[in-house]
Parts: sequence; structure tokens; C-alpha cells
Amino acid sequence: MGIFGSEAKIHDSLVKRAAVSVRKYLQGKYPQLSFQHRAGITKAEINTALRKIDADLGQTLFVSDASIKPDGGIIEVRDDNNNWRVILISEAKYQGKDIENIREGIYVGKNSNQDLMVAGNAIERAHKNISEIANYMLSESYFPYVLFLEGSNFLTQDITIQRPDGRNVTLCYNSGALNRLDRLTSANYGMPINMNLCKNKFIPHADKIIMLQAASIYTHGDGRRWGEAEMSAVMIDIAETSLKMLGSDLFCQLTGK
Amino acid sequence: MGIFGSEAKIHDSLVKRAAVSVRKYLQGKYPQLSFQHRAGITKAEINTALRKIDADLGQTLFVSDASIKPDGGIIEVRDDNNNWRVILISEAKYQGKDIENIREGIYVGKNSNQDLMVAGNAIERAHKNISEIANYMLSESYFPYVLFLEGSNFLTQDITIQRPDGRNVTLCYNSGALNRLDRLTSANYGMPINMNLCKNKFIPHADKIIMLQAASIYTHGDGRRWGEAEMSAVMIDIAETSLKMLGSDLFCQLTGK
Repeated sequence: MGIFGSEAKIHDSLVKRAAVSVRKYLQGKYPQLSFQHRAGITKAEINTALRKIDADLGQTLFVSDASIKPDGGIIEVRDDNNNWRVILISEAKYQGKDIENIREGIYVGKNSNQDLMVAGNAIERAHKNISEIANYMLSESYFPYVLFLEGSNFLTQDITIQRPDGRNVTLCYNSGALNRLDRLTSANYGMPINMNLCKNKFIPHADKIIMLQAASIYTHGDGRRWGEAEMSAVMIDIAETSLKMLGSDLFCQLTGK
Repeated sequence: MGIFGSEAKIHDSLVKRAAVSVRKYLQGKYPQLSFQHRAGITKAEINTALRKIDADLGQTLFVSDASIKPDGGIIEVRDDNNNWRVILISEAKYQGKDIENIREGIYVGKNSNQDLMVAGNAIERAHKNISEIANYMLSESYFPYVLFLEGSNFLTQDITIQRPDGRNVTLCYNSGALNRLDRLTSANYGMPINMNLCKNKFIPHADKIIMLQAASIYTHGDGRRWGEAEMSAVMIDIAETSLKMLGSDLFCQLTGK
């Protein structure tokens, strides 16, 4: 529902605008480097990246122009070997209009007599792009995927909203009918939300080492909207972590040697 | 659409029935071993498994009884140390009613004048359970996740269907408006569909080795339904691969020593 509505649209363009400003900021701060910002990446490119790692991978393509388009696009830097390397992917997802509905005095449900709408599951689709980019970046040791969540389905604390008629409605963050954060946390292996997880974890276990590519998931606990500047700050933090991880491959440009 | 409809429901119970028969088959073939079949797994259990691997993982839980419930449930075997180990997870997803609509002469679309319905994206939600189970099984070297697809959104060849009025309608498998297979193939890293990918790939790359957990994705190329016996055969193949991978941990029970 909400994920396709007008609120979602406004939000999508905010994260895109934030990404544009992040790219400008980075270009200003690191004039020795070249950056590009593109809207999406094709499955064909992802397949090529996979095949470079192993010939068994990246074989299937059913719709020739299939592509993925994260809301905020993809920012890349050119490395010393003239390859473009991803340093930031951003998406913003809005789900749950309860706060707005209560504030405006709108009842919901079949008989228009409920304060709260049972949350949907559209947000689970966010895993698809995360999985695609994780594949594209399998050969890297960092994963600069940022997912901004907002709306009443992503609370981390109880909040109370007043209706126009004066009645207060409390939204309990841990209600199964309302909260959808658990539908996303497999993407960061249950690590904390609101944390920069860009640098991959390498975990020794039994006779192997496992590389974890974790999405960095951000939400305001009280359902508040993300402002453009707030998003940009998070995105810069992630993008600069990527640049640092790529240090050896940017060394010549950074030092001018 | 289709994914929530009556066709989907029928299909879900077929895969559940297939799983029940697979469990019986395995118990008959391997009487030395103990099997169990359960409907789901809680996020709390997944978090516990993650924390065993690394204390940073598996920390978040927002809705205390959150769980995942793959359509066909989860089949487990008891190992020599009395731990239950997953050997099969199955899901069946139906999306795209075009074949049925054409056969029955039903036009679709806003003005009820189209042969074909533009495909939806609900199937992308399938990635969530795959991601959850992959986390739960991070410490294993196999991943027995089977995803059965059916419906007109998962064709791998063109098919022609006759309407009741005699007119033939051709469904082109590689149409972007119809085919949704590309939305799923990140879950198997673009490896072939209709292939047992249960055994994890370990790929050396640069200074690291990457473990890939790939879902085994099955579809009939012509949109035909999956029968219970067909699904069972695939599921037994996957489950027996799991048992073989667990050989050292089942050795005492298998040999009676």
C-alpha cells in the first residue's frame, strides 16, 4: 500500500536528491578522484561481474534489458586502473501511514472504524535489490548498501499521536500487526540498525571463513521522516568508508604519483 | 495478485503434502535416522544460530514471536550429537494467471480487453525467507532450499494457448511484461535453474574464499503445474544431498557403531 503511494514517491525523490548532493560533496572533497552517479545497473552487468569470479555463475538472463534501479541510484569512483567501483547504493522505503492517518483523523479498515491498519509485506521486496548488488560486489570486501526506512511499520519505540478530536492513540512498536523491521533484519544478519556496516565481516567458523555482506539499515525510532540533509550525512559516512576500503586502488590518484 | 489467490493456496498445500510424503520416504529408506517436519522457524532461533557463529550477529528482534513459515515447512534430521539439522526447506510460488485466463476466454486489464496481464512483483518477496534460512545455515556447507515456480510469469519457452473462440494467443517467455524469473535469479547467483544447487560453492577470489549459498529454483518451461510426485522427486534429491553432506555427523547412527 504505502510503498506505492504518493508519500513513497516524494520520499524516493528525496533520496535521489540526497545522492546527487553526496556526489557533489565527494567531488569537492576529493578533487583528485572522478565520480559518477547512475540510475541503475543491468542484470547483464551483474552477470558479467559474477562470471569474472567463477564461470558457473551469472549464466541466466530471461528478459534481455532486465535491470535494477535503487531509488537513490548508484555512485561510483574510477580506480587507478580505470575501472568504476561502486561506493554507494541507496534506497528509501516508506511503509505504514498510521501516524498521518491518526493526525488527520482518518479511520481505516473495511468498516472505516479502526485507528490502525494491519501492516503489509511489500517491504520484503527490498531484499531483491540487496541480493543483486551483493552479487555484483562479491569480489569486494565492503558493501555500501544503505536502506532508509520510514513510516509507522518501522518504529523502535512506542509513540502517542493525537487525533483532531483530542483522543490519543498509542502505537506500540513491538506489535506484530504494526512492526515490519524483522522482515528486513536478515539483510544485516541481525546486527544493529542505524549503524554503518559497510565494511564486510569475515568470520572464521570450523574449517572455513565466511564473508558477510550486510546492508546498513536506518530508521527513525519514532516514525519521523528522513530529511535530505540527514540522509546525506549517513550516505557520506558510508561512501567514505568505501573510499577508504578502496585505498590501495585509488593510491596513485590520491597521491598524484 | 495470483500469489495470494486461490490457485496459490491449492499449490501451497500441494508442496506441504509433498513434504509430508518426502519425510515418510526418508524415514522408510533410512530407518537408522530420526526425522522431523515442522511448519516454521522463529527469528529467535535464527538469532541464536547467528550468535553461535559470532556474538555481533543475531541481536535484533522487534516482534517477540516473529517467525518464518515456508509453504512446505522444514525437514530436519537428528545428528549423532542430538542436534536437529535442516535437510530440506521448500516453497512453491504461483504468479501469472494468463494461461488459465486465455483458456477460459477471460479478458483482463482496466477495460477488460487484453489477453495478458502485466506481471506483478510480489514474487520478489521470496528472497526474504531464502535470506533468513541462509543466515540460519551459515555454519553449514550446504543449503537445501527448493523454490518451485509456476504460472505464466515463469516461462522459459514461448507457448501458444487457444481461447474458447478458437483464436490462438502466444506468450513470449522473454517479454519484460510477462517474465519474472530475473527477479529471482540473484538467489542462485545466475546459475542454471532446474538444478540441484544444495552443496555450497566455495570460490577462491584474490585473498579470500567466498561461500555461496544458492537456492535451487525449479520451473516448468511451459507454465505447467507442478504435480505432487514431481515435487517430491526433486525434494528427495535435495534432502539426500543434505544427508550426504552431513555424513560425518550421522556416521554413528548410520553404521550403528
